[in-house]
Amino acid sequence: MNLNKYKNVKRRIGKDWINLNPIQRGGVLPPESRETLQSFGDGYSTCDYCLEGRVDLVDSPPIDDLAGDIAKFVNMDEIMFTAGCRHVQWVALKALTEPGDVIVIDSLAHYTTYLAAENLDLEIREVPHNGYPDFELEVEDYADIIEEVEEKKGETPAVLFLTHVDYRYGNRINPEKVGKIAKKWKIPYFVNAAYTGGIMPIDGRRWKSDFIGFSGHKSWASSGPIGMLATSYEHSEKTFPKSEVKGPWSGRGFTKKIPQLFGCPPVFGAPIATLMSSFPHVYERVQNWDEHLENARWFVDKLEKIEDFRQIGQRPRKHTLMSIETPSFHRVSKRHERRGFFLYDELKERKIAGIQPGLTKMIKINTYGLSKEELEHVISSFYEIAEKYDVEVG
Amino acid sequence: MNLNKYKNVKRRIGKDWINLNPIQRGGVLPPESRETLQSFGDGYSTCDYCLEGRVDLVDSPPIDDLAGDIAKFVNMDEIMFTAGCRHVQWVALKALTEPGDVIVIDSLAHYTTYLAAENLDLEIREVPHNGYPDFELEVEDYADIIEEVEEKKGETPAVLFLTHVDYRYGNRINPEKVGKIAKKWKIPYFVNAAYTGGIMPIDGRRWKSDFIGFSGHKSWASSGPIGMLATSYEHSEKTFPKSEVKGPWSGRGFTKKIPQLFGCPPVFGAPIATLMSSFPHVYERVQNWDEHLENARWFVDKLEKIEDFRQIGQRPRKHTLMSIETPSFHRVSKRHERRGFFLYDELKERKIAGIQPGLTKMIKINTYGLSKEELEHVISSFYEIAEKYDVEVG
Repeated sequence: MNLNKYKNVKRRIGKDWINLNPIQRGGVLPPESRETLQSFGDGYSTCDYCLEGRVDLVDSPPIDDLAGDIAKFVNMDEIMFTAGCRHVQWVALKALTEPGDVIVIDSLAHYTTYLAAENLDLEIREVPHNGYPDFELEVEDYADIIEEVEEKKGETPAVLFLTHVDYRYGNRINPEKVGKIAKKWKIPYFVNAAYTGGIMPIDGRRWKSDFIGFSGHKSWASSGPIGMLATSYEHSEKTFPKSEVKGPWSGRGFTKKIPQLFGCPPVFGAPIATLMSSFPHVYERVQNWDEHLENARWFVDKLEKIEDFRQIGQRPRKHTLMSIETPSFHRVSKRHERRGFFLYDELKERKIAGIQPGLTKMIKINTYGLSKEELEHVISSFYEIAEKYDVEVG
Repeated sequence: MNLNKYKNVKRRIGKDWINLNPIQRGGVLPPESRETLQSFGDGYSTCDYCLEGRVDLVDSPPIDDLAGDIAKFVNMDEIMFTAGCRHVQWVALKALTEPGDVIVIDSLAHYTTYLAAENLDLEIREVPHNGYPDFELEVEDYADIIEEVEEKKGETPAVLFLTHVDYRYGNRINPEKVGKIAKKWKIPYFVNAAYTGGIMPIDGRRWKSDFIGFSGHKSWASSGPIGMLATSYEHSEKTFPKSEVKGPWSGRGFTKKIPQLFGCPPVFGAPIATLMSSFPHVYERVQNWDEHLENARWFVDKLEKIEDFRQIGQRPRKHTLMSIETPSFHRVSKRHERRGFFLYDELKERKIAGIQPGLTKMIKINTYGLSKEELEHVISSFYEIAEKYDVEVG
């Protein structure tokens, strides 16, 4: 067995590179968390002083306090940790539904929303968007779909589900609008804030949300994988029912454990430790959201000066994640020996990473956390590449 | 909000300490993985060159190869990564059962086995052990229980489940014995090797196992949380069914994703990267298992020289995890102002950690990976503490 290839594995993207990867911008660790990562790098390192058998209840390091403080930070009542926002969605939907139930989701939802529903044998109803080029959600349709479902099934849907910002176009929806519909119909309401919580201010109470899903590695500057499920007191007990299983011969029971979390949430060690050490940084940075958004809008304007480049999705941007059609570069790829990889190669030469290798029809970029200077380097690099291949800039 | 307590969080157990924590010995990172941890510390860092949408298929770093090599290493056909061995059990049982099915488990099983069954509404039948002081499993009872279930339900149990080494007494069962029963009755057979895979040689084919569960943070020297599910070709396809969900309005589908893994296994970044960088180390170290076992046996002999200290569970030890009754120390705790915490305090003074604070009736220790010199320091510390409180050593 050739084991050498596993030795000294290093990330190929260097520290001095600019990384535009849409899923990675909010997960970059601040320097203080790199130290925490070393201190808590070993498996189960946060379990040194676990007395209750659950990592969320550990008070040294102060994980129990952290859960309470994060709940306050997003204006909800409780926070529970999970294996990721994908796990969050499954946990919440499992608590809220029976197999066969209908849930209403937005048609821009993350793929993990569909999979959570599939896992639980739920029937999905999708709230449409208005298609190309804006892909704007028709929020009012939530009410129509509720009525339709009630008429057909004799009961309202089990859950309303909204994706705060979607992962394809970065469209941002006002959760309060859907929250009002949910409250009117008394339907539990889940907001997936994987792309927003941790990078912009969140107010769950104002949203009228019963559940919010967050992603530590996506948007809370933590090593992860780790997700967080925020709930209201009203829902927390039935969302995290304690184990009631008993060994029929042994009589063994585990009454502090939570089955949906596999007992103790699988986030011990580096994931929860770095979420903790990054929290002061995250707490501060959400105040600067407007500046990041301004930079993203400025960036779009500059990129659209390239021939046929066109940002799709909401205009102006309400988030730093964006999709840009680049048909002029696609035409270049057709005559280039490296085909679609020419763009990847050209960017790599300029120490820019994160555009999916091979793609040139449409590119996805997230500018979050990059400075104006860094974005300027990206723009001038794109201009250079365009000019090199006779694509107009102007 | 007081955020200072989250700043500069450090593990209180120093690097020069000896840690006996039963769940932590097999998860200690080798030095080379501490570098990998830094390189891949950011969330989604292993997704830089993901073309297939699943981290287990990434080939830079060579995660796809790693899965194949680990499968060979444990003599099985395929490996899939999960959020931990707790997630592994749920994934396998979900694939193998319908609600209401009977599964047969050993009565020393990890609590997460019971919880996985609870999550899936399964009926548990337990294979008894022979009680105090050995807690030896009555392996032959698997066959009796199968017959009983068949008689009562008209069909054999859906799964036979064995815990290779249990977390309370560290008893090790020969999986081949149960494997023969499983093959005879043609019942899928799952072995939980969370405490053995990665620290001792594993031969899944010889065990006649269809599924083996492993824990990266527990026994494969990886930061985690990460688990691995090993399967045979026969079972792999139905264990990891691909997503078939379709958005009813949008037509969206995700046919490469695996619902039970929440799409893409939640192990990207540090968990999978450190599992990889530690694999050459793990590959070597399992060859030294006998030496670690010898040390554990020697350690037990020495500790039992203290008045009333008695190792319970199998004798001689077949694993480095052990439970030791310490009633003489419990008597000390009754007259000590710090009560049961006196032992914790005394050990802490000697830079020894990992004994559950407050406990003195029975202690759990894992000697895996500690040198003879380190173990000698532990023994002489215990002797000193005994003598300090007039407990005989002799």
